[in-house]
Amino acid sequence: MKEIEGKKRATIDNVLPQINCGKYPIKRVINEPVRITADIFVDGHDKLKAAVLFREVRSGTSGQWKEYPMQLITNDNWEAYIHAREIGNYEFTIAAWVDHFSTWQYGLKKKYEDNQDIAIELLIGAEQIENTLSNPSISGAHKKSLQQALAVLDANENEEKTVAYMLSDELSDLMALLNDKEKVTIYPKNLPLKVELKLALFSAWYEFFPRSAAQEEGKHGTFADCERVLPEIAKMGFDVVYLPPIHPIGEMHRKGRNNATVAGSGDPGSPWAIGSKEGGHKAIHPKLGNFSDFNGLVKKAESLNLKIALDFAIQCAPDHPYVKEHPDWFTWRPDGTVQYAENPPKKYQDVLPVNFETNDWENLWKELKSIVDFWIDKGIKIFRVDNPHTKPFSFWEWLIREIHSKNPDIIFLAEAFTRPRIMEKLAKVGFNQSYTYFTWRTTKEELQEYVTELTQTAKREYFRPNFWPNTPDILPSTLEDKEEPSFLISLILAASLSSNFGIYGPVFEFGLNEAYPGKEEYIDSEKYEIKVWEWEKKTKIKEIITRLNEIRKENTAFQSTYNITFCEIENPNIICFSKIDDENDNRFLIAVNLDPHHSHHGWVKVPLAAYGLKSGEKFIVHDLLSNEKYTWDQEWNYVELNPYKMPAHLFRVETA
Amino acid sequence: MKEIEGKKRATIDNVLPQINCGKYPIKRVINEPVRITADIFVDGHDKLKAAVLFREVRSGTSGQWKEYPMQLITNDNWEAYIHAREIGNYEFTIAAWVDHFSTWQYGLKKKYEDNQDIAIELLIGAEQIENTLSNPSISGAHKKSLQQALAVLDANENEEKTVAYMLSDELSDLMALLNDKEKVTIYPKNLPLKVELKLALFSAWYEFFPRSAAQEEGKHGTFADCERVLPEIAKMGFDVVYLPPIHPIGEMHRKGRNNATVAGSGDPGSPWAIGSKEGGHKAIHPKLGNFSDFNGLVKKAESLNLKIALDFAIQCAPDHPYVKEHPDWFTWRPDGTVQYAENPPKKYQDVLPVNFETNDWENLWKELKSIVDFWIDKGIKIFRVDNPHTKPFSFWEWLIREIHSKNPDIIFLAEAFTRPRIMEKLAKVGFNQSYTYFTWRTTKEELQEYVTELTQTAKREYFRPNFWPNTPDILPSTLEDKEEPSFLISLILAASLSSNFGIYGPVFEFGLNEAYPGKEEYIDSEKYEIKVWEWEKKTKIKEIITRLNEIRKENTAFQSTYNITFCEIENPNIICFSKIDDENDNRFLIAVNLDPHHSHHGWVKVPLAAYGLKSGEKFIVHDLLSNEKYTWDQEWNYVELNPYKMPAHLFRVETA
Repeated sequence: MKEIEGKKRATIDNVLPQINCGKYPIKRVINEPVRITADIFVDGHDKLKAAVLFREVRSGTSGQWKEYPMQLITNDNWEAYIHAREIGNYEFTIAAWVDHFSTWQYGLKKKYEDNQDIAIELLIGAEQIENTLSNPSISGAHKKSLQQALAVLDANENEEKTVAYMLSDELSDLMALLNDKEKVTIYPKNLPLKVELKLALFSAWYEFFPRSAAQEEGKHGTFADCERVLPEIAKMGFDVVYLPPIHPIGEMHRKGRNNATVAGSGDPGSPWAIGSKEGGHKAIHPKLGNFSDFNGLVKKAESLNLKIALDFAIQCAPDHPYVKEHPDWFTWRPDGTVQYAENPPKKYQDVLPVNFETNDWENLWKELKSIVDFWIDKGIKIFRVDNPHTKPFSFWEWLIREIHSKNPDIIFLAEAFTRPRIMEKLAKVGFNQSYTYFTWRTTKEELQEYVTELTQTAKREYFRPNFWPNTPDILPSTLEDKEEPSFLISLILAASLSSNFGIYGPVFEFGLNEAYPGKEEYIDSEKYEIKVWEWEKKTKIKEIITRLNEIRKENTAFQSTYNITFCEIENPNIICFSKIDDENDNRFLIAVNLDPHHSHHGWVKVPLAAYGLKSGEKFIVHDLLSNEKYTWDQEWNYVELNPYKMPAHLFRVETA
Repeated sequence: MKEIEGKKRATIDNVLPQINCGKYPIKRVINEPVRITADIFVDGHDKLKAAVLFREVRSGTSGQWKEYPMQLITNDNWEAYIHAREIGNYEFTIAAWVDHFSTWQYGLKKKYEDNQDIAIELLIGAEQIENTLSNPSISGAHKKSLQQALAVLDANENEEKTVAYMLSDELSDLMALLNDKEKVTIYPKNLPLKVELKLALFSAWYEFFPRSAAQEEGKHGTFADCERVLPEIAKMGFDVVYLPPIHPIGEMHRKGRNNATVAGSGDPGSPWAIGSKEGGHKAIHPKLGNFSDFNGLVKKAESLNLKIALDFAIQCAPDHPYVKEHPDWFTWRPDGTVQYAENPPKKYQDVLPVNFETNDWENLWKELKSIVDFWIDKGIKIFRVDNPHTKPFSFWEWLIREIHSKNPDIIFLAEAFTRPRIMEKLAKVGFNQSYTYFTWRTTKEELQEYVTELTQTAKREYFRPNFWPNTPDILPSTLEDKEEPSFLISLILAASLSSNFGIYGPVFEFGLNEAYPGKEEYIDSEKYEIKVWEWEKKTKIKEIITRLNEIRKENTAFQSTYNITFCEIENPNIICFSKIDDENDNRFLIAVNLDPHHSHHGWVKVPLAAYGLKSGEKFIVHDLLSNEKYTWDQEWNYVELNPYKMPAHLFRVETA
């Protein structure tokens, strides 16, 4: 019976949130609250108290536990909120104990109300207060208050007043504070929490091909050209500029335009076919510039409040230096050739996968980590990771943990469009943001179901969506051959449903919509050829991007993904939802017409209580897109949306 | 990187069932299957194999792992079924690995279908088979088969035939069997399973007061009288005879008839006020008999295939010997009196609760365990535990584990009618059966919701319901002042919704229905006085009890609680459900009229597919209560139930 703590009677079960029984941390950004709940109870009728214990975890040492009292909600389920003010690793657990003073208070009240003799009850209370007073550390005002309570009990001049004094909040709080917490049950696990940069939760990404930044037809763009383009992107209000791989491109089996198996002379190849005799993942494509030019670009971005994100794609062109230097990192076929990537019957001859089952896996992992370290050293803090789901999860878990142990402010975005459990796993092992199925969720029902899954299930604790209407790999059917309203609809949905969103430009803001026949991909894709763009061109899409990014920055309700609630509206073409940040008095009602071709109208049920409004109370809905204001005072209100004018209302709910 | 197993790429997550992250065992009885599921996946496109590993756990030593192949269901979720043939403690875990041969087969198939050159593919396959053959332990027929496969590959006389040979089930199975399972991922937890007696899942209980077994008014029943009563109970088909406490009853503060605070002279007191100068929990009330008489009763029961269950109530009358021998096991008040049980403002002066926060808790626990051991030694294998929720959960966890470590066939029934989390906890810490809220679930909606919660949620893994229409403490409003049909309805519901059920008799089969005014309790309750019953009296309720117990014994579908599915029927007064045991071809459709006063009819939707029936196929429904048979051939069928005739159909679904 040695390991049993027989006198500790409180039970703590079902502590949430916890991911895989505490194996993986839940995630938050700075100041983002965590609601912690647990089933806490004791045998019999005694009263309980409980608290969350919370502390920072540093390698080697740990912070002091801080205590946050929990409240009983219902059915033995208790809650408390915590948050952290700095990035880092934290842990929490729960303490619960039988509170004999509250138990005594409860009994005293019931017996007094039942007109029972309470003389002995009062003696029992006095005993408890005396016990507390016997603690030598209690002094000053606290000691005086307890002595006074004892005197009241002793004298008991007026039973009604004595009982009221004993049940007072002052005495309850004081006894809760001073009472020796004996026999405290501690939940046996410390559950991990990782607190990250706010940028991990709230960001607007812009992807472009640096080689398309030149101003002349036939010229390969350079980092200097990119510096010229950055102010245009900054003006639109983006935070992150993500560049596809900037490394030398393989010449062996290079792909031609429109993914042709054989490249024409002068075809630049896909940037994802990384490595040539000019270097691999730590080299820069010579036509983009050198490290000094790269440094210039990073500095220019910084000056515009932009962050450069690089692509981390673990794959090699057949002429990548690794193939000769580390042949055992690749798979060799019986005919002496090296195995290229394939998803039978599809073949990708221009890229070689790395064999993670190699016996030399430790050196492979270290070398891959050194690539990330290399670019961190060059000023990069954000990595968009290409196809992470084709590399082992244990590798990512190790890599991200190692990187974050020295650089906790690095952000990794997982580019995985694959099966749900796999996308979840990547988020669990540490990716800060994840691509999603948003691009293919088009109906109201699909969007509501998917966003509910992302925001109202356990996923909300560790999976941070990043919504992209398009990418260089995807021109979805919602945009193919479609006009401006379609682009606006998917843009507004991405930027308002998710606090992280991104576009691949400038094809997006220019409304390019032609697909390769039979494929969900752009025709004449920049993946295989160099383009020249009129970067300064004004479009309505660009104007709305700019406005949306302004609105998102000025209104905190858009800075979380998890504060959404869908609202009833009787038209299946209109999706309607609230985004509420009570702490900053920032409340929105958003309605989007999903039909790019027709006007739609309907009656929306405004969740008045959620906005802190009473039925019949007047309030203003202020559309931050059109700047129009309406005064409403009913629960059900009329909206009408013409997609050619503007497919959405972004109503800020304001007091009238 | 030492603790990382870099080359093991398979991932195993979300293994179910597990209770509190594997802290508590899931429960089964002998031969009852466990469906084990897990999310299993790997990076990339490689094919996986997975298996459940299962073994017995004995103290000090453990059995050999046995392997059960898992099948992919959908969305990376895999399943397998296991079961155990003996009671005891078991554990299971999961192994998963990349299967390179299946991966190769998949690629070969796709490439061949795409008309690609497969020459090198065939070489790769040959390499794999050669690798397998290089294992010196492979010989005989296996070796020959592999050599033959190699020869087919080598010759490749007909590409179509070669590919077919390589994809054949024979070769697949052989390679799966012989292939070295390299880089196997093992789920890091061994999850516990406790396998118990079938009686833990399938039992019919009969409770009676032994002191009411005498034949003469004013006489205290004896164990000898009980022996006379047992055959009547056996005839009704019960398995378990549960006796309220048989110990000496306290004289101090003894309760009188109808729970009067002061007992009249000659009042026998409540059997739950345990202990007097005549002894405590290890003594027998002198008027019931001595240990030799008790032994006679146990033997008589055995001869009738009945098991005696005793009450284990941890509480003491004020004159229990423990109070003087172990004053520190009780709470003493400032006036020098001992604290009696209370739930303010209610007082229970005739019983003292034990103070589990005593510093002497280890001796207290040991003494309490010695009570259970004492009665096990006297031939008792079943304990109905009184109010377990007012004693610490850690005590029960320890007690039941200790008892089961030497006597794994002991059954504990938790008499707790309290909050859901607490009832769940008692089941988790080891109680084999639990009282439920059944007694207060009366409408169709309530019954369906409650039974669904018990059978279709995680509760099914550890919480075994025992349904009681009445107890000495509860005469529910469904029976109060009600006639025979009400008794039949609640009886049939209990005996068919739950494989464990019980009644408190003979008041139940005699249809006693008078409550103490304003209370949900019997008037002139046997708890406080001695009755004389006409045990041999025949009633319709008794006849139906007998028939129900026969049906339950002859039809395995009634021997589990978890095989239930509710069926649609358009009348809110009729509840309808299937109970199916496919393994034993035993399938039921049950309809119960919940209205004791009126006939009801309706159209029930028969779940044809669940019964293995095709639409339009004829089948017989054979009512085992009335012995009537109907031939049906439609999905929707008419039923009509007159409660005065018989409020239920127990249709066995038979082939026409």
